[in-house]
Amino acid sequence: MKNIGMLLSGRGSNFEAIAKNVAERRIPDARIAIVISNKHETAGIETARRLGLESLVIPSKGMQREEHDRAVAAELKKRNVDLVCLAGYMRLLSPWFVQQFPRRILNIHPSLLPAFPGLEAQQQAFAYGVKVSGCSVHFVDEELDHGPIIVQRAVNVQDGDDEHTLAARILDQEHIAYTEAINVVLEGNFQIVGRRLVRK
Amino acid sequence: MKNIGMLLSGRGSNFEAIAKNVAERRIPDARIAIVISNKHETAGIETARRLGLESLVIPSKGMQREEHDRAVAAELKKRNVDLVCLAGYMRLLSPWFVQQFPRRILNIHPSLLPAFPGLEAQQQAFAYGVKVSGCSVHFVDEELDHGPIIVQRAVNVQDGDDEHTLAARILDQEHIAYTEAINVVLEGNFQIVGRRLVRK
Repeated sequence: MKNIGMLLSGRGSNFEAIAKNVAERRIPDARIAIVISNKHETAGIETARRLGLESLVIPSKGMQREEHDRAVAAELKKRNVDLVCLAGYMRLLSPWFVQQFPRRILNIHPSLLPAFPGLEAQQQAFAYGVKVSGCSVHFVDEELDHGPIIVQRAVNVQDGDDEHTLAARILDQEHIAYTEAINVVLEGNFQIVGRRLVRK
Repeated sequence: MKNIGMLLSGRGSNFEAIAKNVAERRIPDARIAIVISNKHETAGIETARRLGLESLVIPSKGMQREEHDRAVAAELKKRNVDLVCLAGYMRLLSPWFVQQFPRRILNIHPSLLPAFPGLEAQQQAFAYGVKVSGCSVHFVDEELDHGPIIVQRAVNVQDGDDEHTLAARILDQEHIAYTEAINVVLEGNFQIVGRRLVRK
């Protein structure tokens, strides 16, 4: 049984999709061991409670980055977490934290990286006028939105789209992509060549 | 009847696909009025001759950029070209040339722009480890691989791919995308909002 730790700062819609797929065995032999929010009263923590999952708030406000990261890592390690999944975790991780879980931290980003890193990626893509956008699940390394890509899914921009309808269709694909990526990583049948993830 | 001018420097595989689609009326009411190469003895010029299309070589070697562009523009204007299509034209166009054909110059690029502009885009994408790449047809403006995007088509990177198999599958989609984009532009039922092309 593999233990997943979830980090979030808000709604955690990707967390909820992952929890459903764990419950329905589309992510087999895994459980969500802990859900940690860096903010109080997030909808994500409410969801965790409703689903009967252990959850914690470790407020980051006013804490140094690494100090906060050490508190989070301690809770993750206490639960023998195999995989750390960021689901709308709005805080940069320290190099120290990244080194604690080598190739064991995943993030999802609402664009086809390396295009449109950073905040409001869907809006950036829409304003740029791309006709194809999508989402990316990648390993977290010490640079923002940068580690090796595990799964990407494309989404066509439609003529009637605005940035909200586009973001909603990307989110649907995020929910699929994140589960695909977790299964790839937990199965472990891959290697990293340069910065390419290659399945064996 | 709309007149298309093709500029190329080599094989011109996209030129050949466009010529086929013009002949088979998938690009209706249009003809290729002139094919211009900036290099001698290109396969693209051979193809033009074989297809009975008028062609010219205007060598760029040793010429100043704008001097060469003026010679090319003169030949295009002589044939009342409505649309200038770059098909592997390995030469930057001068601002002067771009201004002669406002929103009338198209280029195709083998990546999902704005990712991987510049040379060897397929190899760049492969080495980066993306799981989705593709191609982009865009208006040419005064910056490299930058103008408003008309059509993009996605291509999944497969586990067994190398950069050559990926480039080949992208090329198949280029041949479809370029014809789609030419039809959008020749039909004219669009507007540019910011830098987004929006079909009416």
